[in-house]
Amino acid sequence: MARVYNFSAGPSILPEVVLKQAAEEMLDYKGSGQSVMEMSHRSKVFDDIIKEAEKDLRDLMKIPDNYKVLFLQGGASQQFAAIPMNLMKNGVADFIVTGQWAKKAWQEAQKYGKANKIASSEDKTFSYIPDCSDLPISEDADYVYICHNNTIYGTTFKELPNTKGKLLVADMSSDILSQPVNVEDYGLIFFGVQKNVGPAGVVVVIVREDLIRDDLPEYVPTMLKYKTQADADSLYNTPPCYGIYICGLVFKWVKDMGGLSAMKIHNEKKAKILYDYLDQSKMFVGTVVEKDRSLMNVPFVTRTHDADLEAKFVKEATEAGFVNLKGHRSVGGMRASIYNAMPIEGVEKLVEFMKKFEEENA
Amino acid sequence: MARVYNFSAGPSILPEVVLKQAAEEMLDYKGSGQSVMEMSHRSKVFDDIIKEAEKDLRDLMKIPDNYKVLFLQGGASQQFAAIPMNLMKNGVADFIVTGQWAKKAWQEAQKYGKANKIASSEDKTFSYIPDCSDLPISEDADYVYICHNNTIYGTTFKELPNTKGKLLVADMSSDILSQPVNVEDYGLIFFGVQKNVGPAGVVVVIVREDLIRDDLPEYVPTMLKYKTQADADSLYNTPPCYGIYICGLVFKWVKDMGGLSAMKIHNEKKAKILYDYLDQSKMFVGTVVEKDRSLMNVPFVTRTHDADLEAKFVKEATEAGFVNLKGHRSVGGMRASIYNAMPIEGVEKLVEFMKKFEEENA
Repeated sequence: MARVYNFSAGPSILPEVVLKQAAEEMLDYKGSGQSVMEMSHRSKVFDDIIKEAEKDLRDLMKIPDNYKVLFLQGGASQQFAAIPMNLMKNGVADFIVTGQWAKKAWQEAQKYGKANKIASSEDKTFSYIPDCSDLPISEDADYVYICHNNTIYGTTFKELPNTKGKLLVADMSSDILSQPVNVEDYGLIFFGVQKNVGPAGVVVVIVREDLIRDDLPEYVPTMLKYKTQADADSLYNTPPCYGIYICGLVFKWVKDMGGLSAMKIHNEKKAKILYDYLDQSKMFVGTVVEKDRSLMNVPFVTRTHDADLEAKFVKEATEAGFVNLKGHRSVGGMRASIYNAMPIEGVEKLVEFMKKFEEENA
Repeated sequence: MARVYNFSAGPSILPEVVLKQAAEEMLDYKGSGQSVMEMSHRSKVFDDIIKEAEKDLRDLMKIPDNYKVLFLQGGASQQFAAIPMNLMKNGVADFIVTGQWAKKAWQEAQKYGKANKIASSEDKTFSYIPDCSDLPISEDADYVYICHNNTIYGTTFKELPNTKGKLLVADMSSDILSQPVNVEDYGLIFFGVQKNVGPAGVVVVIVREDLIRDDLPEYVPTMLKYKTQADADSLYNTPPCYGIYICGLVFKWVKDMGGLSAMKIHNEKKAKILYDYLDQSKMFVGTVVEKDRSLMNVPFVTRTHDADLEAKFVKEATEAGFVNLKGHRSVGGMRASIYNAMPIEGVEKLVEFMKKFEEENA
């Protein structure tokens, strides 16, 4: 089969040039006579790979020197525990619950302290971002937590919440590197790489150095302490070397594409094509309030909520090479995830296909 | 450069046929039009990959039905916390400390209960396995812990300790699949895959079902509960999909090689070539008591403990294509790790090279 257009919410599409390079280097990375999978993580050749990956990420995101970049394992779900374990000093954090992942983070944090839900959009199936300009931030909150882009529901924070001086912590798993970000607005940013950056199995934590503490409760596993990982430059134990290597190749690709400002333009173009079509379609409609629409994840349904028609659409789209368009069960319908690596023609062709489907099934 | 003979302690050599297949399938896995890195972990195509990997591992190790196989993240180091968190019911465990990794496991377990060191070989730089036929096993011990093969020191348990009826828990990171194992002798077996099986970033836990509990202390992260992972068939969150795929290819390769009995013969042959040479060499000598020698990791030094000569050896070996032979800093000298994927000719050629070096530098 030819390569498909992969609209998966994650793991998802990676740049084809990256995959080609990985295939070419599989048996012999740059004359080392080894695959990156076979290298000692203490070797010079791997040290260059992880250092260069970090440097490129720092360049792309303009990460200040007083932030550490950690390449870890366990996914965002493990960070839902690690963050309160490491950052709760007063034992209090405030959560803005805009979807399933923020909710899981809030629930997990309750194990480690007082985790307050200070805002939520659950009343309307998380189809909008609540007004966060004047929330009841706790006086003793160690941080305010958001999920910056909500993969399942297709919403995103266009404006950051007013944290009233408290630290902001953000899960950026599904929109990292999709646009410029001012790292200094955050105490901690983290992302599972498997949407916009690399293969599942790497989670990156960008954390302000002064937040890394050693006086944690006895029960915190050594591996979950940011201090352990920061002191060892992510090499306390064997890291997910091959995943980090692929992330590094993707960082180079984003640089080649022009960096985050260029990625934003690219992503806005793609999203506009799809949203413009949805806004005028008589068959399909987006599920998200216009002002909060994500550039990355576009959920949509049939205007008549016709489950049979939606199933027919997904089936025919799959056959035509547009795969993983089925929506998340909690929203239903369809979802097109159009991450960095999705080319414009992927979205153009999808819209062409949707138009044709709409005509044929009117 | 041509492919080298890689004697790294881990990550280490993988079968070349596996790497070739991975390279070929990189852009299009079996007609799916996607890389395994790009697939949704909830897709049928990935489900087949993880299910088949588990089935092949079960076949190879003859894992009984009442054991769960979990594909997790965080490496063995994370299991050092997860095991006591999950298995300490009485809050007591006994540790046989035969090297750095067993020691780390023992130290980490002290956070979660009474972790007793009931035997150790630290007095002689862990160069032997202590007599474990009649140890002071704690009456209320939840389990007895061993590291089955000691990567750094090159020792291995030829006989299992007498646990006096208590559960046995074993770290088999560096000798998994190197020989048959009777899974029923253990309550739990775990291994980081990056030595004998696949790319770093996957740790496999084989645990008897009745040991998986839900009544754990509040502080145990959801991700570290075996119950979470067992109930979700290792798909509670996105697993390290690509790593699991490579592990699956290696399981197939081990099957093709004839399974674990054949691997044992293959490994014994290779180890014999190296140990036989060391035993008669006037320049080099193994560091481990003969009866406890590992089939996987062979540390050796110069008889005169000549650091300059050792450095010269490592340098010239590297230039000749025998890489990663430098010993661990805690033992010094050299170490040849000869995992499953190391072909016999790799060891034969290394011994030829050593003989030549010995002659030239006598």
